[in-house]
Amino acid sequence: MLTHFKLTIEYDGTDFHGWQIQPDQPTIQDEIQKILSSMTQDNIIIHGSGRTDAGVHALGQVAHFACDTRISAERFQVALNLMLPKGIVIRECRKVSSSFHARFSARSKTYRYRILNTQIPCAVGRQYVWHIHRPLNIRAMQEAAGHLIGEKDFKSFEGTGSPRASTVRRIHRADFTEKDGLVTFEINGTGFLKFMVRNIVGTMVEVGLGQRSPDDFQKALLAMNRKAAGITAPPQGLFLLQVDYEPH
Amino acid sequence: MLTHFKLTIEYDGTDFHGWQIQPDQPTIQDEIQKILSSMTQDNIIIHGSGRTDAGVHALGQVAHFACDTRISAERFQVALNLMLPKGIVIRECRKVSSSFHARFSARSKTYRYRILNTQIPCAVGRQYVWHIHRPLNIRAMQEAAGHLIGEKDFKSFEGTGSPRASTVRRIHRADFTEKDGLVTFEINGTGFLKFMVRNIVGTMVEVGLGQRSPDDFQKALLAMNRKAAGITAPPQGLFLLQVDYEPH
Repeated sequence: MLTHFKLTIEYDGTDFHGWQIQPDQPTIQDEIQKILSSMTQDNIIIHGSGRTDAGVHALGQVAHFACDTRISAERFQVALNLMLPKGIVIRECRKVSSSFHARFSARSKTYRYRILNTQIPCAVGRQYVWHIHRPLNIRAMQEAAGHLIGEKDFKSFEGTGSPRASTVRRIHRADFTEKDGLVTFEINGTGFLKFMVRNIVGTMVEVGLGQRSPDDFQKALLAMNRKAAGITAPPQGLFLLQVDYEPH
Repeated sequence: MLTHFKLTIEYDGTDFHGWQIQPDQPTIQDEIQKILSSMTQDNIIIHGSGRTDAGVHALGQVAHFACDTRISAERFQVALNLMLPKGIVIRECRKVSSSFHARFSARSKTYRYRILNTQIPCAVGRQYVWHIHRPLNIRAMQEAAGHLIGEKDFKSFEGTGSPRASTVRRIHRADFTEKDGLVTFEINGTGFLKFMVRNIVGTMVEVGLGQRSPDDFQKALLAMNRKAAGITAPPQGLFLLQVDYEPH
């Protein structure tokens, strides 16, 4: 009799080669699976809501797994948090119905990207920001962000190497805030292509530096061509904040 | 003709064996001295406002050095920030008069200690907090903190191994604040003994956990005996925030 569990996971991507299991590289999926497999004496596979790239962080990644066990959700959480590397924390573990799927049941995801826009970089917390020393025009970047809202084809912002059948996604909100030189971008939508947030942020930074206009940002989006967009923002500023589901 | 410079330094203590130069260990003093010596073709010694222990961070450590050079303060700052490890940043470099001494001219110092008081630890930013999962009584800790204010003998909170001629110091303020489970303690005073802030925080945590009363904290202080006080808080929650000087 299989029991289904949902995990909500925080991780510091600094020390990992991303979410997905890879030969000979530490990944978040692998670290969690190893412990679950050892606890249950079974070969456990966990399914994430999606991959995150090497160096990208998460405050609320979600994964599920199923196994024939009497171990409680609470016990899994306590044991995982004792045994996992300190860069991975299980924020919640709960039983869910067999219909729950971390990826396919997701309604929307929220990402956060942090830019430190000060003349001098920081030492404390440098693992969690992209430092840009030239002043950014946040108003222009916010104007560009407006062009993302709605159902659009985001082919221009898709990383190479993993083409999807459809590159259409719906973005619900995309907002910049700024406080004491820390520029925070949050974007919520139905789903995201590979490198999509980092390519959007990189292109928006070109807007913020005056190298592109907000209109040019829109043209890059409409071109449906990766070459029309700008650079890829580095991974360490990016956080998978939250994955939303129907009540379950 | 010697020119005198003041450095204001931020560092992430995680990767260093403290401020002070040591054989075969990376220290902040050593990293900065190496670059300054190479730039000036001279044997530069920098003098900090005081040591910080291995793993302790700083947002505003201050140091000074003197050398016979035509290199400008701005040039020193730019070159240092290019060549230093990413965990050390020079926030400011300026010329000062020959009477300025980072340690002896200091009027007061401010330290911050960060405690994450939540059931589940964090992964992101774990290098910068002491995680305590049992709930702390902040009100009792603040009451204990009140006993620190004024000119007192802090012998009970002095680490072993470096006795000072006098263990009397004046504390101007010592306050706890709490937000979303993050407990922040800030303490300002004329000077601090070795391990003093960490021993104070460790003993206060015993108050917060109900293992000591605020009155018992005061008794520990008055005992002038290290054994009367509590545990030493771990280094990674501690930040040297600021060193204050007379206008110079």
